Amino acid sequence: MTIESFDADGVLDGDDLTIAYVGGGSRQWAPNLIRDLALSEFDGHVRLYDTNEESAQLNAEFGNWVQQDDDATADWSYEAVGSLETALAGADVVILSTQYDPTETFVHDLSIPREYGIYGAVSATIGPGGIFRAMRTIPVYRRFAAAVREHCPDAWVFNYTNPVHFVTRALYDEYPDINALGLCHEVLGTRWHLAMLAREELGMDAERADVDVNVKGINHFTWIDEARCKGVDLWPLLEELKDGERGNQRFTWEDLADESVFTDNWQVTWELFRRFGVLPAAGDRHIVEYATSFIQGGQETLNRWGVKRTGADYRAKHWTPAESDQTTDVEAWLEGEKEFELEPSGEEFLDILGGLTGDGPYVTNVNLPNTGQISDIEQGPVVETNAVVRAGQVKPVAAGGFPRPVRSLIQGHVDTIETIIEAARDGDVDRAFEGFSIDSQVQTLTPDESRDLFGELVAAEVDYLADWHLEESDVLAGAETYPGA
Amino acid sequence: MTIESFDADGVLDGDDLTIAYVGGGSRQWAPNLIRDLALSEFDGHVRLYDTNEESAQLNAEFGNWVQQDDDATADWSYEAVGSLETALAGADVVILSTQYDPTETFVHDLSIPREYGIYGAVSATIGPGGIFRAMRTIPVYRRFAAAVREHCPDAWVFNYTNPVHFVTRALYDEYPDINALGLCHEVLGTRWHLAMLAREELGMDAERADVDVNVKGINHFTWIDEARCKGVDLWPLLEELKDGERGNQRFTWEDLADESVFTDNWQVTWELFRRFGVLPAAGDRHIVEYATSFIQGGQETLNRWGVKRTGADYRAKHWTPAESDQTTDVEAWLEGEKEFELEPSGEEFLDILGGLTGDGPYVTNVNLPNTGQISDIEQGPVVETNAVVRAGQVKPVAAGGFPRPVRSLIQGHVDTIETIIEAARDGDVDRAFEGFSIDSQVQTLTPDESRDLFGELVAAEVDYLADWHLEESDVLAGAETYPGA
Amino acid sequence: MTIESFDADGVLDGDDLTIAYVGGGSRQWAPNLIRDLALSEFDGHVRLYDTNEESAQLNAEFGNWVQQDDDATADWSYEAVGSLETALAGADVVILSTQYDPTETFVHDLSIPREYGIYGAVSATIGPGGIFRAMRTIPVYRRFAAAVREHCPDAWVFNYTNPVHFVTRALYDEYPDINALGLCHEVLGTRWHLAMLAREELGMDAERADVDVNVKGINHFTWIDEARCKGVDLWPLLEELKDGERGNQRFTWEDLADESVFTDNWQVTWELFRRFGVLPAAGDRHIVEYATSFIQGGQETLNRWGVKRTGADYRAKHWTPAESDQTTDVEAWLEGEKEFELEPSGEEFLDILGGLTGDGPYVTNVNLPNTGQISDIEQGPVVETNAVVRAGQVKPVAAGGFPRPVRSLIQGHVDTIETIIEAARDGDVDRAFEGFSIDSQVQTLTPDESRDLFGELVAAEVDYLADWHLEESDVLAGAETYPGA
Amino acid sequence: MTIESFDADGVLDGDDLTIAYVGGGSRQWAPNLIRDLALSEFDGHVRLYDTNEESAQLNAEFGNWVQQDDDATADWSYEAVGSLETALAGADVVILSTQYDPTETFVHDLSIPREYGIYGAVSATIGPGGIFRAMRTIPVYRRFAAAVREHCPDAWVFNYTNPVHFVTRALYDEYPDINALGLCHEVLGTRWHLAMLAREELGMDAERADVDVNVKGINHFTWIDEARCKGVDLWPLLEELKDGERGNQRFTWEDLADESVFTDNWQVTWELFRRFGVLPAAGDRHIVEYATSFIQGGQETLNRWGVKRTGADYRAKHWTPAESDQTTDVEAWLEGEKEFELEPSGEEFLDILGGLTGDGPYVTNVNLPNTGQISDIEQGPVVETNAVVRAGQVKPVAAGGFPRPVRSLIQGHVDTIETIIEAARDGDVDRAFEGFSIDSQVQTLTPDESRDLFGELVAAEVDYLADWHLEESDVLAGAETYPGA
Repeated sequence: MTIESFDADGVLDGDDLTIAYVGGGSRQWAPNLIRDLALSEFDGHVRLYDTNEESAQLNAEFGNWVQQDDDATADWSYEAVGSLETALAGADVVILSTQYDPTETFVHDLSIPREYGIYGAVSATIGPGGIFRAMRTIPVYRRFAAAVREHCPDAWVFNYTNPVHFVTRALYDEYPDINALGLCHEVLGTRWHLAMLAREELGMDAERADVDVNVKGINHFTWIDEARCKGVDLWPLLEELKDGERGNQRFTWEDLADESVFTDNWQVTWELFRRFGVLPAAGDRHIVEYATSFIQGGQETLNRWGVKRTGADYRAKHWTPAESDQTTDVEAWLEGEKEFELEPSGEEFLDILGGLTGDGPYVTNVNLPNTGQISDIEQGPVVETNAVVRAGQVKPVAAGGFPRPVRSLIQGHVDTIETIIEAARDGDVDRAFEGFSIDSQVQTLTPDESRDLFGELVAAEVDYLADWHLEESDVLAGAETYPGA
Repeated sequence: MTIESFDADGVLDGDDLTIAYVGGGSRQWAPNLIRDLALSEFDGHVRLYDTNEESAQLNAEFGNWVQQDDDATADWSYEAVGSLETALAGADVVILSTQYDPTETFVHDLSIPREYGIYGAVSATIGPGGIFRAMRTIPVYRRFAAAVREHCPDAWVFNYTNPVHFVTRALYDEYPDINALGLCHEVLGTRWHLAMLAREELGMDAERADVDVNVKGINHFTWIDEARCKGVDLWPLLEELKDGERGNQRFTWEDLADESVFTDNWQVTWELFRRFGVLPAAGDRHIVEYATSFIQGGQETLNRWGVKRTGADYRAKHWTPAESDQTTDVEAWLEGEKEFELEPSGEEFLDILGGLTGDGPYVTNVNLPNTGQISDIEQGPVVETNAVVRAGQVKPVAAGGFPRPVRSLIQGHVDTIETIIEAARDGDVDRAFEGFSIDSQVQTLTPDESRDLFGELVAAEVDYLADWHLEESDVLAGAETYPGA
Repeated sequence: MTIESFDADGVLDGDDLTIAYVGGGSRQWAPNLIRDLALSEFDGHVRLYDTNEESAQLNAEFGNWVQQDDDATADWSYEAVGSLETALAGADVVILSTQYDPTETFVHDLSIPREYGIYGAVSATIGPGGIFRAMRTIPVYRRFAAAVREHCPDAWVFNYTNPVHFVTRALYDEYPDINALGLCHEVLGTRWHLAMLAREELGMDAERADVDVNVKGINHFTWIDEARCKGVDLWPLLEELKDGERGNQRFTWEDLADESVFTDNWQVTWELFRRFGVLPAAGDRHIVEYATSFIQGGQETLNRWGVKRTGADYRAKHWTPAESDQTTDVEAWLEGEKEFELEPSGEEFLDILGGLTGDGPYVTNVNLPNTGQISDIEQGPVVETNAVVRAGQVKPVAAGGFPRPVRSLIQGHVDTIETIIEAARDGDVDRAFEGFSIDSQVQTLTPDESRDLFGELVAAEVDYLADWHLEESDVLAGAETYPGA
Repeated sequence: MTIESFDADGVLDGDDLTIAYVGGGSRQWAPNLIRDLALSEFDGHVRLYDTNEESAQLNAEFGNWVQQDDDATADWSYEAVGSLETALAGADVVILSTQYDPTETFVHDLSIPREYGIYGAVSATIGPGGIFRAMRTIPVYRRFAAAVREHCPDAWVFNYTNPVHFVTRALYDEYPDINALGLCHEVLGTRWHLAMLAREELGMDAERADVDVNVKGINHFTWIDEARCKGVDLWPLLEELKDGERGNQRFTWEDLADESVFTDNWQVTWELFRRFGVLPAAGDRHIVEYATSFIQGGQETLNRWGVKRTGADYRAKHWTPAESDQTTDVEAWLEGEKEFELEPSGEEFLDILGGLTGDGPYVTNVNLPNTGQISDIEQGPVVETNAVVRAGQVKPVAAGGFPRPVRSLIQGHVDTIETIIEAARDGDVDRAFEGFSIDSQVQTLTPDESRDLFGELVAAEVDYLADWHLEESDVLAGAETYPGA
């Protein structure tokens, strides 16, 4: 018996990695990855796959171009491939970061609920818009998971696609043995914010990486009950700040006029910390969609708490999968119109890859099915906690439970998510409506309104709901907004 | 060793019962009990205790007067007693049916939330009004439980006081070994309604007692997933009716103009049955306070579903603890102004007493701490299911669990109830606010509004919240509606 | 819509019952049933099916003969049928009470383990003999369940076959919607014994039916933590007796020489009550197979505690499925050689049938999958508690949990049972060995001995283990006792 | 607000550590620690406390002497202190490694059960000997925990004392907020063994630190279901070896004659791996006390599986708390009779300390109360899994659950441990006997024997059981072996 016979199951050889990038035409994240890989300690090959082949082709070209940079320390080659199967075949690592459906659907997610008085701030992960985004996306990702099972069953799969909890859960629901991680920047942002507080309030020399937290919850509704900066307990500071000026700011529309929608003023965070004693760990604009009292009263309430709503107009114009300000300009770089500097992006992907290839334990927050890491949520649903990444394995860290009221809010959303996931197994749209109807945003509507909103969203996005059996639905039959009802 | 040495623990001797009636000045339920006892197979003595001594005295007089009726088959004597301790000393059975605080507080429960746009239909068991009723009542009932522990630890305690789940839970929280049952008429009403359907739709000869159901939930938010009339499965009938005319009526204010608030049009019931596949088993006017989409849009929505809101005016005028139409007139009977006929009231109390004294198993719905009778709710909270009553014991019947969306709604309310119960242990009003703030009615308010509503309710009812440490509250300090805030 | 359309699902019409009796050639229980039916309030038809057709034919003849008795109050007809399918077709009630395999296998269950030093007293429900009985029986009963699903899916199925927990679990594992009850006499015997104590020690006038208990556990390892006779709490009496002469008897082989193996001296019961504070509720000879310290030291230990071992010789001679002394003699009655009197048998079957047809609630102990009736055992395994029988439904009574050490012993056996049930799904004999090896009787053997015992039992009973994949077994391959190993 | 105000809660400053060493007179582990500290990156002060003051004094002298070694990189001072309070006052780190009771008690743990036929191999952690060791030790460690709460509530407490699960649980039972870790070498030994297999069988260049495992269980009965060496999955190798020569060795007394009792031949490990599919991860001599079929048949069975029993004679002569071969000789070094070389000991303590002071995540196995890290064992009991150590925090890694039969064996021992812990709260010796009597070693005795063994152990060790209420025991009153019974 030799070692060669054993290298199948999830072992990563950092000198010869094959990465399949589904959604590889990305204008933002792909260029970041390309730069990080060029500066990394790993070598390998990247297959870019996208329904927009041209974009994938452009990124491949860019990737190979970057390799010629003098500062590149690693050896990588890039190609755009024409099929999912080709991309996945034998891949070591799979990156999933794509939404098939066009921008207009995301606009619907925001604008149609608003007509019913629901002022979701982002509508990307929960609430009527988030649920419909999930209903459109789950079937696609079930197919991705099935393809991974067939073409690269042991690959490490990184899912960056929203709604991360729905999507990661769908991957595991289709292929329970998948090695998939759901990844998200929000907790990193909270750690960055805590480091900033340690600098500003305690005079510490602190970066994000110096802040360790005990994080738990579901994606975009995560909570922290321990935070240390270089071992220093930050809790007393947080307790003090929540009652002071920093923790009690009010904002108006005018105050926020020039702010980006991504600016996080933390006032929702402080209020929930005051109320429940544990600290939310995602951007306020996401938190409000789960703690829905903050979106009652519409835009004014949001603004009072320092949150600026993602306008549907904004989204129509600026939509990118990551919804972030675009800072890359591949064409300009290639054409030489803009100076290119090979610098790290700050993304965490390479750190995780390092952990998996044996660079020593790496700890960060990931989304994984609950196997006990959260003690008072059932096993199965995808939750977000820290995990420790080591050679060939990722294990969640046992993070404990919640104060009852917080657990109650989380459990309500878990119930929606699980109901939608079950409904998606056989496209049962009335079952999906059950999950929709218990969403805390939807519960602010009358029964008739909730059915009509559901019908209107289905009608608007019907082209992207082909996996759902719409024709058999009693709910749609009773919705005044649904054609033919 | 002789049998005499053993008769202490919860054994009821039907020939020599001592009943302590706390709230014995009741104008409605006490006369009913007196008539039922006179017609029963049991003999004994009743001690009536009430803060309104005069009423208790009147009822005692009436009780002894009824005994002289020729139709009386049993031998009972009555006395009004001046203290709780005297009432309880060595009692076999304790009836708890009293609210200390005056009518105005119940008016506040309805009217103050309405100012914030919350149109509770009854506000007696959940929602901001129900929660405040609980906050006023829990400390009183903890003291009752402590008195039972001291003066009659093995007595069977029948609690009829709303909110039944909060109150019964408080009894057990104070004295875990108490033999207490929380009792309520709503499920009986559902069985009555089902018998009516069997008569009208199937031509069966059916009474309430012919209908067996498998019931589960929390008081006023109970659900049925099996119903038989004389063994005949009623489910296919219910499935048919929900899609027909009977299950799809719409009402307007005018339609309901002449109806009593107690009329149950079952349209909320049918709608929830359509949506979730299990049948609510309480009056629609109670159900809407838990399934709060039905109270969005105010009175109009309620009316559309056939529910008439209990007006605060109505309540101010007609309030009785049981909130029911008064049909007794003790004084007129005693004066001979009204003819008295000794007839049974239809109350179930005597049936349960019969079961406890060994008349054979009796099955009915009761509220008890969950020890597994509901399989997917945690152990501890007071839930409502069937129970089997036998000589000296009451055991809940294992009723199984719920479809996930229904369980989710129930669990949310359980979380509010448990949080309030915990908060009441040491009068922590900010902890109570945590439970208040996750209530599904309250979640339709903005964070500022929910704090202000809380403050306003405390301010209005401060005289009856003496067990709560209001002065230490950060929440009240921040409420604009709370004097001194 | 009419009532006729609804009578399908589990409704029993007491005037027209069809009973399928699988194992209807029984010499003991069938004649009892026939007499009870003749004296009952029900009318109907019984189909007797048995692999021994002649016996079934004889019982049919006897059944029709009994109907001519002057004392017969009911109208029943009997026929012997030649196939399981014919027996089940459209049946309302199914009785399962048969073991296919011949007496010799039951002899092996006792005698082979004894060679390894395991002195099982009965070896009918657990321990190596009980496990092998289960392994032979489970596949047969899975087929029965499948046949019920096909031919009479709503029938009420009464399983009397040992090992009751394994067998009833197998029925539900095959057909989860089956209306099956596992029934057993042991708890009735305990109630009888308690009534006797109430008579003898308290001078009460008491019969078995006067004793109510709260019973819980698994079949033949059930426990009581409440016992009342006509409402009188028997616990103080039991506490007193356990420390007195009655509770502290020692026996020798000679003392037991003339006793039947069925005599229950209760010394194991008293000892376990002393140790754990809860009272075993099955015959001592069954309890010792679960609380295996009582069978260490062989026959002498058993005898010291008043238990007489079922001899393999005895079993070879006297075997009947119920293992009880035969008191019926159908042939002699039919021939007129023995006088026949139509008297009730004391069996409980008719009481349960009465409950199911609507005679009012009936409460007794039954074996059902745990849905919460036992609070500290997982859901799924078949447990034994009280249940309430009403028209068309049987619901277990929530019986609570156990002191930890008792739960620990029970859980160990549940783990064996569940492992065997899982193994039986695809005949995985090595998986079955895992369950076998953690049995507390088997754990007293060395690893080699336990494998050899397993192999020897398989070898001896190979003809009745056709559903198990013996050829693929590593365990058997390593057993010195298994031919070809 | 400044950083200084925050450094209270569990923050370790590696430049100024105060370590309290309870049991600091140790002849083996203390010298190891002293050498490791001298070679470390940390500075600080060590207080040595021991009931044997002379030993502590000697170690202090040695510690200060070592600091003068040229190779010493760190700055440490040592003192022997006369009281626990002095040792603990304000300590940052507490090491608990002491048994108060003398050698003779450990001899009893082995020799008395042997008289009853129980051949425990070590009798240090479970079985009658281990349970009595726990009963003697728990009260002492409850007092240690209380002292930590009073004198250094935020200190990190390292418990090395056996039985590690009982003792660590007792620390948390007394002081739930204690920062205590139970530590043990056994899993490290398994990782070392796996590295050896990787070297010998796969030709890899592998050390213990290269092997990552997913470990779970209770101390000395831990299991592995994932093992990688530098990312290479070792499972296929283990599967192959278990069926080959290496996995199927037999030993005799003669084969083992010259072996140390600490030699681990892994034959128990292979056999359990074959049977259950998961790999035990502790020395075989410990595993057999939990998987007790391996000690049936006495010494011969143990030897056949390659285990040499710790002789009572051996223990009487060689006893040290760690039971390991002594390799240090402080006096000889100090006297210059033996050459001293300052070399690292290979202990893991410094690595954990490094993690706590912020050297980056460190992952190793620790014993902690279950908060979900094991998914199918209840929360509360102390379990052993990996944990990730970071600046100021230790969090267990979610390790999942077990195949049912393995969980069953573990749960049985957890039930014993929890019962003893509960019994120790108020010294209820009959309650302790309940836990004793369900131990799988004790279950091989008859009820009389188990009581007599219990009585004999109490009698022999009565001087060290002062916290138990022996006089009130019914069990002891009934034991023939207990004086005065």
